[in-house]
Amino acid sequence: MTVSADDVAAAARTIAGQVVATPLVPSAALSEIAGTQLLLKLENLQHTGSFKARGALNKLSSLNPEVTHGIVACSAGNHAQGVAFFAARQGFAATIVMPRGTPFTKVERTEAHGATVVLEGDTLAEAETFTHALAQREGLVFVHPYDDPLIVAGQGTVGIEMLDAAPDLDAIVVPIGGGGLIAGIATAVKARRPEIRVVGVEAALYPSMSEALGGRPATSGGTTLAEGIAVKNPGRLTQPITEALVDEIVVLDEPAIESAVELLAEAAHLVVEGAGATALGAVLARPELFAGRRTGLVISGGNIDMRLLATVLLRGMVRGGQMIRLRVQIADAPGSLARVGRVIGDAGGNVVDIVHQRMFYNVPVKQADLDVVIETRNAAHGLAIRQALDAAGLPTRVLDDSDA
Amino acid sequence: MTVSADDVAAAARTIAGQVVATPLVPSAALSEIAGTQLLLKLENLQHTGSFKARGALNKLSSLNPEVTHGIVACSAGNHAQGVAFFAARQGFAATIVMPRGTPFTKVERTEAHGATVVLEGDTLAEAETFTHALAQREGLVFVHPYDDPLIVAGQGTVGIEMLDAAPDLDAIVVPIGGGGLIAGIATAVKARRPEIRVVGVEAALYPSMSEALGGRPATSGGTTLAEGIAVKNPGRLTQPITEALVDEIVVLDEPAIESAVELLAEAAHLVVEGAGATALGAVLARPELFAGRRTGLVISGGNIDMRLLATVLLRGMVRGGQMIRLRVQIADAPGSLARVGRVIGDAGGNVVDIVHQRMFYNVPVKQADLDVVIETRNAAHGLAIRQALDAAGLPTRVLDDSDA
Repeated sequence: MTVSADDVAAAARTIAGQVVATPLVPSAALSEIAGTQLLLKLENLQHTGSFKARGALNKLSSLNPEVTHGIVACSAGNHAQGVAFFAARQGFAATIVMPRGTPFTKVERTEAHGATVVLEGDTLAEAETFTHALAQREGLVFVHPYDDPLIVAGQGTVGIEMLDAAPDLDAIVVPIGGGGLIAGIATAVKARRPEIRVVGVEAALYPSMSEALGGRPATSGGTTLAEGIAVKNPGRLTQPITEALVDEIVVLDEPAIESAVELLAEAAHLVVEGAGATALGAVLARPELFAGRRTGLVISGGNIDMRLLATVLLRGMVRGGQMIRLRVQIADAPGSLARVGRVIGDAGGNVVDIVHQRMFYNVPVKQADLDVVIETRNAAHGLAIRQALDAAGLPTRVLDDSDA
Repeated sequence: MTVSADDVAAAARTIAGQVVATPLVPSAALSEIAGTQLLLKLENLQHTGSFKARGALNKLSSLNPEVTHGIVACSAGNHAQGVAFFAARQGFAATIVMPRGTPFTKVERTEAHGATVVLEGDTLAEAETFTHALAQREGLVFVHPYDDPLIVAGQGTVGIEMLDAAPDLDAIVVPIGGGGLIAGIATAVKARRPEIRVVGVEAALYPSMSEALGGRPATSGGTTLAEGIAVKNPGRLTQPITEALVDEIVVLDEPAIESAVELLAEAAHLVVEGAGATALGAVLARPELFAGRRTGLVISGGNIDMRLLATVLLRGMVRGGQMIRLRVQIADAPGSLARVGRVIGDAGGNVVDIVHQRMFYNVPVKQADLDVVIETRNAAHGLAIRQALDAAGLPTRVLDDSDA
């Protein structure tokens, strides 16, 4: 192999003390939900909020600031921040190329680490082409996000730390984007414990590694919550390592990714981005792979936009039936609102939003429709509230996504 | 003192292996914001999501299931869950009394641990009176949330772990509710390192410990985000320990608590409840107390309602100027909306909500007001978007909380 366990061990020595030796913590709550013992490797607590800091530091440590004019990377995400953070600390001028339309917060965070951000190209592919040209023109060292032995070895240090903390792990679950993280981890852990099961996870919209390994045509594309692993082409370096060492790849659809983010926030009290939550999603989607196995989940990153996280949390309440939207038919007359409010309140529901609708519905002009969003204990409680309204002569129907 | 460092050490031996030895992690991002080196003790990753599990287990371990009919506690919060979790594991029947009106999720979570929840009393004080009567009537052992030497010693194990992980800490910041956590921690750490600075934090609406120690009349009351430390009377046991060993108490207002919750989510990738975030709030509010001091923050718990967290995150964007609400005057004619949308989009703003207002405003009938919520990069970007609208002949004004 092009990356050896010794390379990963060397990377661990190189980056020791400069990255966070992130904790591996058990979660009783998630273990109970999953039905198997889960330990979480918290790379969301790493510098810059993801494991990418490790590979970036290992790569930069191999360069000599005296002879390197500067470094350049192309990334709209965690790689950008990892490179920018350690470039500043190691005395390199860093340029990060991102496609136009990259969300504000990603630009700001990268600039905050002292890097120069250049917005170029409408797609990541166009930005990459520009980056290579820029590197050549200005004599900058290009730092690849995954297809570089030093990057792979750096990411692999996650695996060493996991086995040091829990030598008896039976399985490790790792998100796959370009494959740098899983290639590094698999290299490190299989050398020490060949029988350990290493499972990868891809987003269903970006199954590029599974497709490449299976010889199937590439289908990647679309908008995923797990943007950190939305990679169209696995690495030339990482693909054969994955093929040789990874036991299984689970492909996860968007609802499963979203649920995993929500569950990590609610039950494990962690802010985790979509890609970072996929390891939990895989365990919940394919429990048979992990039954009876003490399983380590690589929670690879925590860089999720706060507005997106808020939306995921609120949608989680809707999914769980703890937030329902009812359309209630009322008489368009004084006192109607009070009556609806009283029935819902007496049934223990908490009204969080209410809209009167008069103009557009197919109801008699002297009636009105009231759209009410109610917080409930659970789905059964929501049903009880509906029944109470019906019993009070206030017919309801549940509004779901297909309604206005 | 009624609780000694030896008692805390004994508690540590008693609960070892049954509670999570939670990590103490550095946060580069928060350290940079605070201007001093911060380490976070993550009790939000403890079983049941808070440090309360420690004291509960230490107390229950002192009881004999053969002669104890059952245990009872009065709590609508973390103490309830900590007691319920370990009662189930130690073979005790647990009854938890909560005031009526306790949020659904708290009842559900406690019941999920196998406890019987009884809703009694309109206030916590009424629930407590009922609890004591119930304990006497049914021969149940009452588990106090803080005023019990075994509880204090159990919570103090947090301090032992912090010094074990970082023997060179100069300061430790601890939230104060009833005072059990800070009394235990101060007892443990001052015995080992008398020069270490122990700082407590109270919510401004519940400054009961500060008032008691200062001989001032009690003023506690009101609704706080930090409900976990909303305690009206400090403990008889914990007050003298706090007086003897705690160096300073910082009192934190609600906006500071809310900002701390938001910052922990965004910059540290942690879900933390209001009370659990106060240690960070104290460092940001009183930086002079911590300058040049390597400071450990006790992140005491993570049990925050997901809807509340979502609201805090969105309000944080508004506070930071990353979300603004503008009222734009437009002609009530086809094409107006497209024009507004184009100007905002060209200026780089992202429209997230829009409402047409026609009926209630003091504008000519052929005009309309458009209320637009826009996501921006920052406050300066928001200003640039306003200027672009003004320049396009679309006068705006910013809607703040005083507007409809």
